[in-house]
Amino acid sequence: MSPELARLGHVALETPDLDESLAVFHDAVGLEVVDRTDDAAFLRATQEFDHHSLRLTEGESAGVDHLGWQTRDAEGVGAFADRLVAAGVGVTRVDAGHERGQGEAIRFQVPNGHEFEIYHEMEKPDPPAERRSRLKNRPYASTETNPVAPRTLDHVQIWDPDALACAEWLQEHLGFEVHERYDRTDGSRWGTFLSAGGAKIEAAVVQNESGEDPPALHHTAYAVDDPSHLFAAGDAMKERKVPVDGFGQHSISQGKFLYARDETSGHRIEFNDGGYLVFDPNWEPVEWREDDLEDRQWLGGLTPGEAVFY
Amino acid sequence: MSPELARLGHVALETPDLDESLAVFHDAVGLEVVDRTDDAAFLRATQEFDHHSLRLTEGESAGVDHLGWQTRDAEGVGAFADRLVAAGVGVTRVDAGHERGQGEAIRFQVPNGHEFEIYHEMEKPDPPAERRSRLKNRPYASTETNPVAPRTLDHVQIWDPDALACAEWLQEHLGFEVHERYDRTDGSRWGTFLSAGGAKIEAAVVQNESGEDPPALHHTAYAVDDPSHLFAAGDAMKERKVPVDGFGQHSISQGKFLYARDETSGHRIEFNDGGYLVFDPNWEPVEWREDDLEDRQWLGGLTPGEAVFY
Amino acid sequence: MSPELARLGHVALETPDLDESLAVFHDAVGLEVVDRTDDAAFLRATQEFDHHSLRLTEGESAGVDHLGWQTRDAEGVGAFADRLVAAGVGVTRVDAGHERGQGEAIRFQVPNGHEFEIYHEMEKPDPPAERRSRLKNRPYASTETNPVAPRTLDHVQIWDPDALACAEWLQEHLGFEVHERYDRTDGSRWGTFLSAGGAKIEAAVVQNESGEDPPALHHTAYAVDDPSHLFAAGDAMKERKVPVDGFGQHSISQGKFLYARDETSGHRIEFNDGGYLVFDPNWEPVEWREDDLEDRQWLGGLTPGEAVFY
Amino acid sequence: MSPELARLGHVALETPDLDESLAVFHDAVGLEVVDRTDDAAFLRATQEFDHHSLRLTEGESAGVDHLGWQTRDAEGVGAFADRLVAAGVGVTRVDAGHERGQGEAIRFQVPNGHEFEIYHEMEKPDPPAERRSRLKNRPYASTETNPVAPRTLDHVQIWDPDALACAEWLQEHLGFEVHERYDRTDGSRWGTFLSAGGAKIEAAVVQNESGEDPPALHHTAYAVDDPSHLFAAGDAMKERKVPVDGFGQHSISQGKFLYARDETSGHRIEFNDGGYLVFDPNWEPVEWREDDLEDRQWLGGLTPGEAVFY
Repeated sequence: MSPELARLGHVALETPDLDESLAVFHDAVGLEVVDRTDDAAFLRATQEFDHHSLRLTEGESAGVDHLGWQTRDAEGVGAFADRLVAAGVGVTRVDAGHERGQGEAIRFQVPNGHEFEIYHEMEKPDPPAERRSRLKNRPYASTETNPVAPRTLDHVQIWDPDALACAEWLQEHLGFEVHERYDRTDGSRWGTFLSAGGAKIEAAVVQNESGEDPPALHHTAYAVDDPSHLFAAGDAMKERKVPVDGFGQHSISQGKFLYARDETSGHRIEFNDGGYLVFDPNWEPVEWREDDLEDRQWLGGLTPGEAVFY
Repeated sequence: MSPELARLGHVALETPDLDESLAVFHDAVGLEVVDRTDDAAFLRATQEFDHHSLRLTEGESAGVDHLGWQTRDAEGVGAFADRLVAAGVGVTRVDAGHERGQGEAIRFQVPNGHEFEIYHEMEKPDPPAERRSRLKNRPYASTETNPVAPRTLDHVQIWDPDALACAEWLQEHLGFEVHERYDRTDGSRWGTFLSAGGAKIEAAVVQNESGEDPPALHHTAYAVDDPSHLFAAGDAMKERKVPVDGFGQHSISQGKFLYARDETSGHRIEFNDGGYLVFDPNWEPVEWREDDLEDRQWLGGLTPGEAVFY
Repeated sequence: MSPELARLGHVALETPDLDESLAVFHDAVGLEVVDRTDDAAFLRATQEFDHHSLRLTEGESAGVDHLGWQTRDAEGVGAFADRLVAAGVGVTRVDAGHERGQGEAIRFQVPNGHEFEIYHEMEKPDPPAERRSRLKNRPYASTETNPVAPRTLDHVQIWDPDALACAEWLQEHLGFEVHERYDRTDGSRWGTFLSAGGAKIEAAVVQNESGEDPPALHHTAYAVDDPSHLFAAGDAMKERKVPVDGFGQHSISQGKFLYARDETSGHRIEFNDGGYLVFDPNWEPVEWREDDLEDRQWLGGLTPGEAVFY
Repeated sequence: MSPELARLGHVALETPDLDESLAVFHDAVGLEVVDRTDDAAFLRATQEFDHHSLRLTEGESAGVDHLGWQTRDAEGVGAFADRLVAAGVGVTRVDAGHERGQGEAIRFQVPNGHEFEIYHEMEKPDPPAERRSRLKNRPYASTETNPVAPRTLDHVQIWDPDALACAEWLQEHLGFEVHERYDRTDGSRWGTFLSAGGAKIEAAVVQNESGEDPPALHHTAYAVDDPSHLFAAGDAMKERKVPVDGFGQHSISQGKFLYARDETSGHRIEFNDGGYLVFDPNWEPVEWREDDLEDRQWLGGLTPGEAVFY
């Protein structure tokens, strides 16, 4: 039986100035700091019980250390390792605790050079008593957090000049499923929208506008649970002078979005709301062609922007 | 390998007056009528591609014909049949097409007498052209529907005087997972909140207030995607004189709710929003005791009400 | 020419424990403390430029010191004094600065014994630099405040066993306009919904349920600007164990509401949203009879409660 | 005593194809058609009791017939006429009923050539019984209308190359009050944001981007009462192929907006939400300079667009 991924579990990013980046990700965005070392901070969103969904590390320059994917069961980590090695992929084993809070893991590169991590175990530390919700099904109370604090990590968008090859590799080697795909009018693939766990898009793999730039991480998305929170999130970003460079609704996924950017590191965060869930076991990928609609955005739009390269 | 359920797929209800009940479920609630025979109507919500998530049949009295659960794969139907027969459960085979739009199925009773159906195939008919969304990932346009039309079937609440036994049976025979449970102060179980597919609560199995009434279906829930739509849904119900008998937010599941009732049949619909999703493969059931909070409702409340008995 | 009121300007309440009450009004509700003395705190909401819309004073017991109404122009204060004296009402002059931030005022009792204040001038102190919004039309940034912080003082509800007489007195002596009125089935007046400035209901004058209790202030309402904020406000109250004793939508005024209560003082706050504005110069009072609808609440409801007596 | 305006009452627009424009203003936007003649339709929003807030007339080309302002009292119409004549403005008297539903009026041109109308009386026809709300304070039920149907007419934006002169004329001759103003970095006035009735901005008088185009009406705004309705409005427009050319939040007024355009006539409608109300009798105009913020839009933005010239 094939190993299976359960979800996008965490993202590990590098920044040239950790305190400056925390002013965005913690103070402005409202992620909670669970753990902190000299050069790293471990954050999670208010509805997350796991130790972290975002690791920020201070380094010489901005970058993406790895994207972490969690398996459905403990055996999955070893099983994926065997499968990848058999396919000729170089796999590095990572000891439990090497990344704080996390069990044994493996790391490897996908063809475009992005570092992926696969793991299963993650500690579930209690929030500090004064931040604990009275609701047992929610870690953090809503009382002191940023008004726009998102609830859960949602997805990543990866830029790859050969976006089709990347998507097919994720399907073949990691079992990602395709929820939607989008072709240019010449029939070439612009983007593929994949799910690790099956219920929602967790990896959007797209070409950048020129189609020529090197691979990059365009954004990491966290979910809010009310469309009006996107206005509130934008308001909070602007008050703190965190640039907002996109607001609207995608036609692909139906997701409503607001993009903000940590100027120190260049890392972009998406606040997202809506988008449908796939519980239909017979879902067929939605196939878009560039001329189906007048614009890829259903509402609003994006400021053409940079992304953080690997 | 064990067969697996993917989701609550549809609910089949009986009403003494189909036209009167459609005035609620179609006109007021905003479900779309996909198919219609002399004595039955097949409805789905605006984000559903399958043939129906609600079948309404005219009969001598109100009742619940069955609750339909969809398997992850086609083999699951036969595999569940074998497993149930081996466990001494009486299983009836239902031919493809016996229920419009649906493939082969099995039916059986859970211990409290509720009829369950398990199936895999369901047709995906196109909406009429004038109702088709321009978005390829959404069947119905938002343009002419009821302002509060929900998006997808969400869950059912079952009343059972031996709610614990019912929940355990669903776990053992059908592989339901427990997301939350709620005990009275004497340690007895009041309710168990289970998932068929794993990501969200799809069956709340609870005692009624007296703990003595016969098994019943308290409500069928459809999801909206904005908390303010609960106000809008209530407004639309009141304008049409459809009684509203609950509004607020549950502590269990964090779900926000508005209950309305079809007076003709007594069937209750919940508009629900929010509630968390479980993608965490290491989720542990949330354990509530009646004295953890001052009230099971976090906000607002319910008018003590009847339910439709089986 | 008659003097005119512009609006309900502020409410002055007494509490037996100022710090405990600030834990509700400031910490939980999110009003900003502009000024503080040993025994008083002056608060305003995030969209208010005036020195205060709520004065909380520590006293031996809970109570209502006065309700403050602001005139359209400076001459209005003296003109109202003359008019009231001529009508035989006892008027006390209050020097500028007697109430912090406020200019000259007059005080007097309405027939039920409630103390009213009329004034025109109020200082507009700058917020602290770190709380100042970047938007010049908004005093406070949204960045650190309570997620549910309301924007502006909206209205008061007064309980009076002779509610009709009270309303007529406000019309005759202070120029209040009637937006809506509500009669019992025997034709007697239950409540009158009046505006000081003309655009919205600012004083709801109603009988309590028994019709026999002494005059009281049932609640002070502050406006939020999104119906979903009522859920968020309730959530924040519950996390801090501030009791919530009402949630829904009124038929009168169409106002959506969530009531919370400061247990220390018994003072109740309403978070309100919606309700229509009257800019129509030919508005005719809306006349309700108790049997027009099945319930005075359009959605949800109230826990029968106490009010703070004068 | 000076005559006073109460509000922007209605807008009278011309279109080359009335049926096509009704497909936008009625079918898509959700305004109700109250009255209809061969070449004109009279529309109002769901919370409006007056006969119309929008008159659409079929003519040879698109245009703006007039903007209608309602006085506080019946005497105001004649008093404004006297005042304007005394100031040398050419005034035309319009008989009651000349414009359906409306009492006596006067018309005149402001310096840029825009036609203004001043009137006081307007009929308040009942909605058809099947559309009447059960709420006595609301004309139309929410049950069959477009999901995004706005509630009330809100404001107009006027383009004028000499925007300062236009604003000053409105202040001097019609008693408009300034709520906000916005200067370029060289100190020249870009825009003035004025209120007729005092509580909200009803006329935004601005230069177009080039500063050179002839006077025009950029848009007519109708208010919704929930920020998430702007997403819903955009969705409904897109489903019907009504172009959306702006979405976000203004810094001036704090108003959240979504612009759509009737391609037949070129007339643009704004769905707007939020923005503050001025009940403060001592309000001082908010003074912006172009370099106070990095952008006039707080969130999102506008597609540079055309406007309908007079």
